[in-house]
Amino acid sequence: MRDVQSENDKRGLMINEVGISDLYLPIFISDKKNKKQQIVAKIKASVKLPSNQRGTHMSRFIEVIKNHQKFNFNNKKISKLMKEIRDKLHAECASLQLDFTYFINKKSPISNKSFLMDYQCKIKATISENNTIKKELEVEVPISSVCPCSKIISKDGAHNQRGLVKINVNTSAFVWIETLINIAEISASGVLYPILKREDEKYVTEKMFANPKFVEDIVRDIALQLKKDKKIESFEVECTNYESIHNHNAYAKIKS
Amino acid sequence: MRDVQSENDKRGLMINEVGISDLYLPIFISDKKNKKQQIVAKIKASVKLPSNQRGTHMSRFIEVIKNHQKFNFNNKKISKLMKEIRDKLHAECASLQLDFTYFINKKSPISNKSFLMDYQCKIKATISENNTIKKELEVEVPISSVCPCSKIISKDGAHNQRGLVKINVNTSAFVWIETLINIAEISASGVLYPILKREDEKYVTEKMFANPKFVEDIVRDIALQLKKDKKIESFEVECTNYESIHNHNAYAKIKS
Amino acid sequence: MRDVQSENDKRGLMINEVGISDLYLPIFISDKKNKKQQIVAKIKASVKLPSNQRGTHMSRFIEVIKNHQKFNFNNKKISKLMKEIRDKLHAECASLQLDFTYFINKKSPISNKSFLMDYQCKIKATISENNTIKKELEVEVPISSVCPCSKIISKDGAHNQRGLVKINVNTSAFVWIETLINIAEISASGVLYPILKREDEKYVTEKMFANPKFVEDIVRDIALQLKKDKKIESFEVECTNYESIHNHNAYAKIKS
Amino acid sequence: MRDVQSENDKRGLMINEVGISDLYLPIFISDKKNKKQQIVAKIKASVKLPSNQRGTHMSRFIEVIKNHQKFNFNNKKISKLMKEIRDKLHAECASLQLDFTYFINKKSPISNKSFLMDYQCKIKATISENNTIKKELEVEVPISSVCPCSKIISKDGAHNQRGLVKINVNTSAFVWIETLINIAEISASGVLYPILKREDEKYVTEKMFANPKFVEDIVRDIALQLKKDKKIESFEVECTNYESIHNHNAYAKIKS
Repeated sequence: MRDVQSENDKRGLMINEVGISDLYLPIFISDKKNKKQQIVAKIKASVKLPSNQRGTHMSRFIEVIKNHQKFNFNNKKISKLMKEIRDKLHAECASLQLDFTYFINKKSPISNKSFLMDYQCKIKATISENNTIKKELEVEVPISSVCPCSKIISKDGAHNQRGLVKINVNTSAFVWIETLINIAEISASGVLYPILKREDEKYVTEKMFANPKFVEDIVRDIALQLKKDKKIESFEVECTNYESIHNHNAYAKIKS
Repeated sequence: MRDVQSENDKRGLMINEVGISDLYLPIFISDKKNKKQQIVAKIKASVKLPSNQRGTHMSRFIEVIKNHQKFNFNNKKISKLMKEIRDKLHAECASLQLDFTYFINKKSPISNKSFLMDYQCKIKATISENNTIKKELEVEVPISSVCPCSKIISKDGAHNQRGLVKINVNTSAFVWIETLINIAEISASGVLYPILKREDEKYVTEKMFANPKFVEDIVRDIALQLKKDKKIESFEVECTNYESIHNHNAYAKIKS
Repeated sequence: MRDVQSENDKRGLMINEVGISDLYLPIFISDKKNKKQQIVAKIKASVKLPSNQRGTHMSRFIEVIKNHQKFNFNNKKISKLMKEIRDKLHAECASLQLDFTYFINKKSPISNKSFLMDYQCKIKATISENNTIKKELEVEVPISSVCPCSKIISKDGAHNQRGLVKINVNTSAFVWIETLINIAEISASGVLYPILKREDEKYVTEKMFANPKFVEDIVRDIALQLKKDKKIESFEVECTNYESIHNHNAYAKIKS
Repeated sequence: MRDVQSENDKRGLMINEVGISDLYLPIFISDKKNKKQQIVAKIKASVKLPSNQRGTHMSRFIEVIKNHQKFNFNNKKISKLMKEIRDKLHAECASLQLDFTYFINKKSPISNKSFLMDYQCKIKATISENNTIKKELEVEVPISSVCPCSKIISKDGAHNQRGLVKINVNTSAFVWIETLINIAEISASGVLYPILKREDEKYVTEKMFANPKFVEDIVRDIALQLKKDKKIESFEVECTNYESIHNHNAYAKIKS
């Protein structure tokens, strides 16, 4: 059967990324506490296509990913997988992106009841001609914010709301998801929990009202923490507050 | 050219709904204040298919809708459109659903600054064999809720958050979107506004803290209002609070 | 601390459903081939609230679900969990809904290469006053359809596209997800695969072109199969084709 | 009342973007054929915040946008609006993003029946310290693709499917949405239409089967066209095919 993909292309245009997207798969990734955690990943994988080749071979992406599906997608394994994609597709560069929900066991502050809480994460890795592997880790952390302006001007209360912090870091080392979640949570007015009894709810409410913060405060406090971590080469931090007095959101972003 | 759709079907199965979905279109609907409002609707239209016919004629749905696109989709026009779909498709029953964002001018409570606020709405109409037209109107109203439990047990503050009320009513008369929005807003802890200056923010914050409500309170207070309206034949009301202390939501639902 | 939720309510309105939604959790469910499969579920759980009680106790839902998180959510376990929710919340009725991605190992037709394919599923269970447990299973199956009209009138080719079949069944017995997926796949023009080599692609293309079907054909053929299964008490089947010649979709629905 | 936002900040961190997001609004934009078109825009607006200021004044964004809501958001108006945001917020830089559905009247190729078709678009404008305004225009164009490999190896037919082209261009001049849509449509296997009669369906089917293209072919042919347009300073073009034989997608991307 004719291999149309391998035929010569005369348009003279290199393609930066060609591959597959929206492939869903259960895989394992490194977990700080329990060694590994099974996740359901949405996968995007691509290679660079030279200008003289008409098409890539899409089924080979699946074959390489299949060979790794049962392993732990830790730092070492991702590097190995990246190289295999590049080699099997005869490409110079390759990239791989995983989007998934990650779970962490979290204890309520007073009653000490623990349960799992979900965080949306993204890992992106790219390997280039010179064998360098670059990694990007993104974590979305739901937080609460109490408005400092509303608190000062109102006789009683202050509008507060759920917000979402997004931290994206570039690194050639390894950064734990848990590290970024912790930085986001200590920088907000309050932390969200999977389970709270009444004594916890009292504690959590009082703590966040003692700690009012604008979106601007939250991204600045997170940026200060991220700057201290030498493993983080560059970062972008964003906070979006789902205002309880408006139907639009307040947001802020700092890039390093 | 052969008309495969019109061929005879021997499987003996009537099809309840067959037609088109996810058709986007700018149309006009009735607006309480300004007579009509231009919206962008996501349209679903269908007919009942008798057991002996293989298929419907999809392009005719578009042709009928096209003939009405410039008119105001008020009560009378929807009835006319429903009948045309049914007739042009040689069907016994037809149904039409419009999902759209509706805008209302809203004034801030103290500074009187007004601007548009968006509400997600759905209108569904069905016409049956006996020419009866039934209508369903659904309105999603963002609101704020202050937790009564958190307020009583905490020394300072109370967790509050954005929530979403969904009211769905069945009627053979005409019910204004504005009526349902108003019922939702007066039944919550607080109302959301497109624009608030500092004096408004103070007022809105203090008002919602003086009016703490659970999701249970909100759906009950709305249901009490809906029961009084004789045009509403039956209803379903739902409230979802995007808790500022949890990553999951609290919700409640009452069906009449 | 005062228990505001337990206080008396004078509005005289029962609440049909009150509880939590959008709780994400890794759990196990029954898998036909491998006994159990770990999934990430989006959970909604609720109880009926009597008219004289102001609120439910949201944290108890989490506590009951926590006790079951490590077990296999098979038929027996769900029944047990439903009863526990009802009892712990002092309610007459309770309901539980799980939305999740389920994976099945699937072999390509010629090269016999197997890999996992994803299906979106929903399980809903309700327990009522008389201890009866009703179950609803919904499976979304991506399929392909070749248009019979386009095939007959065109000199070459026929427009074909990805479509999505949704089968929802009510049962008091147990129905495998695998059974519903199989019924959907044998009733479409073609089946989707996670991995296909060239010899498979040739086979799959020729097979779907030998089997052109409208949305109407697909829902009818599925309905005929579902009617034969005595475990299925009632069903609803829907097919949406993402037409490759239009930006809107074609859809059809049969209710038993 | 105290103006907390204007207070001094000692963390020494500039904020790249701070403002509002997810504000929905009906506005007007330039339309090549009809001068202007009313759209519903999702708006994001932000300014740069100097390191010594604690917060921005969120309500002012709404006030400036309100002043422009009734005008046509053409090239000139956007520039004026950008400057007003920057001035009213006492900022050095500002940015504005509009996401919206745009409609174009489209004629079927044989029967000449015309109707509106929807395209998802994004306009982003930024104004910097030196008064330079940069614009980004993004258009998503649904297309159809017929697989060249499947066509050559199969005795009958070829798998085809809906795909989505995304073209993003940077310009300091003005580029019509219509120009980018046209480039995408002439570069795919086939064009999508709002309404097609049988004679059109025959024509469209035969035309796309005479023109099989991979995602790689589509992005390359679009890139060749974009390179010719001198108004376009840089671009990124992406194509995602919703494969009718897989549940994952094929995609390709070229950056200029």
